Formats: sequence, structure tokens, C-alpha cells
Amino acid sequence: MRILVKGSVIIAAMTLTLAVDIGGTHIRVAAYEPNSIAPIAHQRTKSLANTPGVYNRLVKAIESIWKEGQVSAIGIASPGPLDPHTGVILDTPNIPEWTNFPLTSKLSDHFGVPVHLDNDANMAGLAEWQYGAGKGHHDLVYLTISTGIGGGVISNDRLLQGFHGLGAELGHILIDPDGPQCGCGKNGHIEAFSSGPSIIRYFNEQQRDGQKSSLQPDPSLGTAQLAEAALTGDSLAISAFSRAGHYLGIAVANFLAIFDPSILVFGGGVSQVGDLLFKPFEKSLRMHVFHPHYLDDLIITKAGLGDDAGLLGALALARMKSNE
Amino acid sequence: MRILVKGSVIIAAMTLTLAVDIGGTHIRVAAYEPNSIAPIAHQRTKSLANTPGVYNRLVKAIESIWKEGQVSAIGIASPGPLDPHTGVILDTPNIPEWTNFPLTSKLSDHFGVPVHLDNDANMAGLAEWQYGAGKGHHDLVYLTISTGIGGGVISNDRLLQGFHGLGAELGHILIDPDGPQCGCGKNGHIEAFSSGPSIIRYFNEQQRDGQKSSLQPDPSLGTAQLAEAALTGDSLAISAFSRAGHYLGIAVANFLAIFDPSILVFGGGVSQVGDLLFKPFEKSLRMHVFHPHYLDDLIITKAGLGDDAGLLGALALARMKSNE
Repeated sequence: MRILVKGSVIIAAMTLTLAVDIGGTHIRVAAYEPNSIAPIAHQRTKSLANTPGVYNRLVKAIESIWKEGQVSAIGIASPGPLDPHTGVILDTPNIPEWTNFPLTSKLSDHFGVPVHLDNDANMAGLAEWQYGAGKGHHDLVYLTISTGIGGGVISNDRLLQGFHGLGAELGHILIDPDGPQCGCGKNGHIEAFSSGPSIIRYFNEQQRDGQKSSLQPDPSLGTAQLAEAALTGDSLAISAFSRAGHYLGIAVANFLAIFDPSILVFGGGVSQVGDLLFKPFEKSLRMHVFHPHYLDDLIITKAGLGDDAGLLGALALARMKSNE
Repeated sequence: MRILVKGSVIIAAMTLTLAVDIGGTHIRVAAYEPNSIAPIAHQRTKSLANTPGVYNRLVKAIESIWKEGQVSAIGIASPGPLDPHTGVILDTPNIPEWTNFPLTSKLSDHFGVPVHLDNDANMAGLAEWQYGAGKGHHDLVYLTISTGIGGGVISNDRLLQGFHGLGAELGHILIDPDGPQCGCGKNGHIEAFSSGPSIIRYFNEQQRDGQKSSLQPDPSLGTAQLAEAALTGDSLAISAFSRAGHYLGIAVANFLAIFDPSILVFGGGVSQVGDLLFKPFEKSLRMHVFHPHYLDDLIITKAGLGDDAGLLGALALARMKSNE
């Protein structure tokens, strides 16, 4: 909280923090009072990221909950890659008009308050640490398993951002040089094995190669439908999740050797399938972990904040930066 | 520096920090005045790690430079795995009598001062950051390539230790599930591709399989001798280093995506071979890096402190802990 003083008269107490979560389909904005994670105002608007004018829609969404003289800072969670140190979006694939786009400086010029930015997975990890499943831990690894795999890391009570702000890109770790192609174009990243589309791709390939399944070939097949088939005993569907869990165990064994966290938090839609993914994951993790000591008292849990993780991470970021 | 006061008389200024480096062949101890990295006293004794009595030899070495009432703390670099939070050596392979050995509490009881411990690679990384090649950086990755591969990480100006103190085990990252067996027993770790013994093993296997080389089969072949052969054009020797560099590039691409450091420091004997390893490394790194932005302004350099890195890391650790 900062107090503006003019002469000897306090003219405004800027106590509100604004948080923004930019998703593929929606932009969400919310205003928070100090020490609270219950918004006093919120707004949700379609982002239509592929339709020009995202920036103007974002400005309007913020203006719709703006309270003149009361806002101290704005925090933003956005798809990356982006540079949190400069506030520039580099070339986020879902919003083509935001290439080398100086988002925070434009917003800061417009609204006259500090604006802070980081990518959605980092922000979800920060939120889980500050307000969710990871409260009180000093070393946390967050993984979101969805259309991609994203990571957020708290190490030594600090958010890992890195020199260019590109740290914790945990989905793009190579774990097999002969592995399938990743969405990013490289080969053998964990995302290429265990993200939703990678699981579906493997299932489709196996089915095309003659493996039997109760499911009809379907170009719009999703992981929820595949999980349903697996739960009714479809062995190809089961093996598709099992393979994803196996490789996820390899990647997480690497993350343990690297970060040695006390808690591992899983978010994202694909992690909702539960045991189909996490039983084989756990078996693989035990097989691949460098030393069993890493598993002592390690908590492995689901994210606690659901869809609010990005928004609350943006809130936590703005509060954190205001206190630096 | 702490001042002991008895009644109103200052009886001693405890200004010295002692550092200990426990190696496979030698124990080194040294005493340092504040703000200096030039020892005012030092001692070097054989560690004979496989001969019983390492602990007593260590105590004697410290006593030989002890100055009663003047020492404020002791820092120790030791082979791991070990727990820096409790000061317990878990099961370091070279010193069999130190299994679950409470090194710091025993020394602290004996000498009456705080004793701090961490593994040799972490300490070398800390030393390079505080006093060596990495001064002034906020995000540093140190890799020692020797009989094993060890890592030390500074992230956000903090030494990465982790929940159990087992973080930054960068040599034991799986990069190929079909890769060769590592010294630790697991498969496909970077250490199994690019450590000195792994390079030699590959060369020997290829030679046994009929690949031609100017070198005679020799069970005591070392990397220095192999590098000599490579420099005179031995193509099998060249390819052994080239393969190690290629896989090292994969591992380091992972470390960039994870830590996004501003500097990468290479220590250890094998890194002395230079271009034989680092030309193929660089080519592989450029091929595998997740996004070229990670390489912008990234410094890749050799360690600056040579054999003193462990000792100076132990010094830095003791000073760091005294200031917490």
C-alpha cells in the first residue's frame, strides 16, 4: 500500500491490486484489497486471441473495473514466451499481433501505475505457493499438463525467472533424442510425450497401425473421451495414458535431481484423469529417481486453485514486486 | 565477525573463517581473514579416503592451523551425497566409513564453532559465483566434467540446495532412456555419456568392435592421452569427444530451459581438452536449445579458480551462513 501525499493532505490511498489473466478464449480481470484473494470486482471478456484488437479489449476490460486513484499496481499472467524483466511478449503463438509487443510499458503509460507480467505457468506456480496447495513450502515445482506442458518453480522462496525471464520451461526438456516431435518443433521433449494432444496422437497412430480399440477413429477425439474409454477397459486407451505417465515419471525424476522440491503440484486438464496417468507416473518415478531420499516426505498433489490460478498468480506477482 | 564480551572486557575477536576441502586423495584446510581469499594459514594432508581414520586425520588437519578464540566458523566441501541442512554425509562412495555420518555436529562439538557443509560441486559453483568467473551474475550454472559430472547452481542470487539438500545433481539427468549405464546404476544420464570414464568406455567399446585407432588397447587409457591422439588426427578419438560434446549440448539445452542462466561455467579435468569437446558441444547446443533467445548474451566460460574452487566455496558457504 502506498499513500500519496500532496502538501500535507492525504489525497488517496492506493490500496487495490488489479490482476489480469489472458487465456486463449477469455481475458479475466479482477481487483483485490490488501491481504485478500476474494475479488471486490471482476470482469470476464472474450479474448478472441486470433482476432485483431486483443490489446484494446484488454484495456477496456481493465477500465471496466478501474477505480481512479485507488489502484497501486497491475499484475498480468499471459501465454509466453515473454520477457518478465522488460514486460515484452516475444511471439506467443495464440496472439499473432503480439510479436515483440511491449505490453507492460503500454499499459503502464495508459493507466499510470506499475504493471508486472509473467507467463501463465509461472503465475499458476506462484499462486499455488502463495495461496494454494504449496503454502509454507520453500521449494515447489508446479506442472500444468494440458494442450502443452508448462512449469513454474519456487526455489529457496523465490520465483525462478532467469536471466532472460525464460526459466522453468519444464515442458521443453529433452528426455529422448529419438522421441516424437514437440509442438515447438524440436524432438523428444516431455511435452511431446505427455501433453493432451501427444497422448491423442499416440492413440491415433497406434489405432491407424492396427491396434484395436472400442473407439471409432475420430479426428476430434479428446483426452476426456479417451479417459472414459480407458475406464471401461479399452486397453489401447489405457496404454496411451500409461505411456504418458511413464515418460512424465522420467521428466519428474530429472526435476527432483535438479530442484529437490518438497512439493510437486499438478495442474491442467489432463491431470484430471487421475490414476490412469498417475499410477504409471508414480511407478516410473520410483524407477527413475536418482536416489530414494528425494522421495522422503515429498508431497505430490493436485493444484488447489483451479481456474483462478493464473489470476491469483498475477495478483501475487504484483504484490511481490510492490514489496521489493 | 562476532565479538565475545565478558563483563565489560572484550576478550577475543573471532575473525577467522576456516575452510576445508575433502578430496579423494587430499584433505586441504585453510584459514582466512575477513574479505580476503588469500589464506593466512593452510595445510594439506593425504585423505586416503579408503583407509579408516579419515575423520581423525581431518580433525588433526584443522587443529594444525587452529587459532584458539579467533575462529568464527568452519565451512566444508565434501563429496556427496550429503545433507547440507543437517550436515550428515549420506553414503559417499569414496569414504566407506562415512555412511550417515553426522560430520558437522561432530566437528562443531569438538571445536565449539558453527560448521557448515555442502557437496564439492555446489561449493565450486558457489566459489566461482562469489570469487571467480561468475562474479556479479545472478543466475549461474556450474558444471564440472571429471570422473563424474557435478553441478552447482546459483538462481536469483541464491545457492540451490533443495528440500533434502540434494538439488543441482546435474550429472544425473536422464537424456536418453536407451543410453548407457551411469556410475550410479541408472541408465542414460548425461554423466554416462560425457564424463571422462564414459568417453574412455565408448572409445574402448568402439575399438573392440573393430573401429581403427592409432592407440593400442590400454586398460589405463585416460582422457589426456585420448585427447593427444585426437589432436594428431585419430578419428576414433575425435569421435569419442565429439559424441560426449553432442550429448553435453543436449543436457545444457535442458539446463538453459530450466534455469535460463546468464553464465555457464565449466570446471573439471575433462573440460581442459577444449575444442575437441566444446566445438561439438556448441553445435549441439545451438541445435537443441528451446529458443535462440536463451543464447543472447549468455557467457560460456571455463572455471577461474582451478583447484581452489572447493576450498573457496567452503569459505563462501561459511561466510554466507554467518550472515543469515
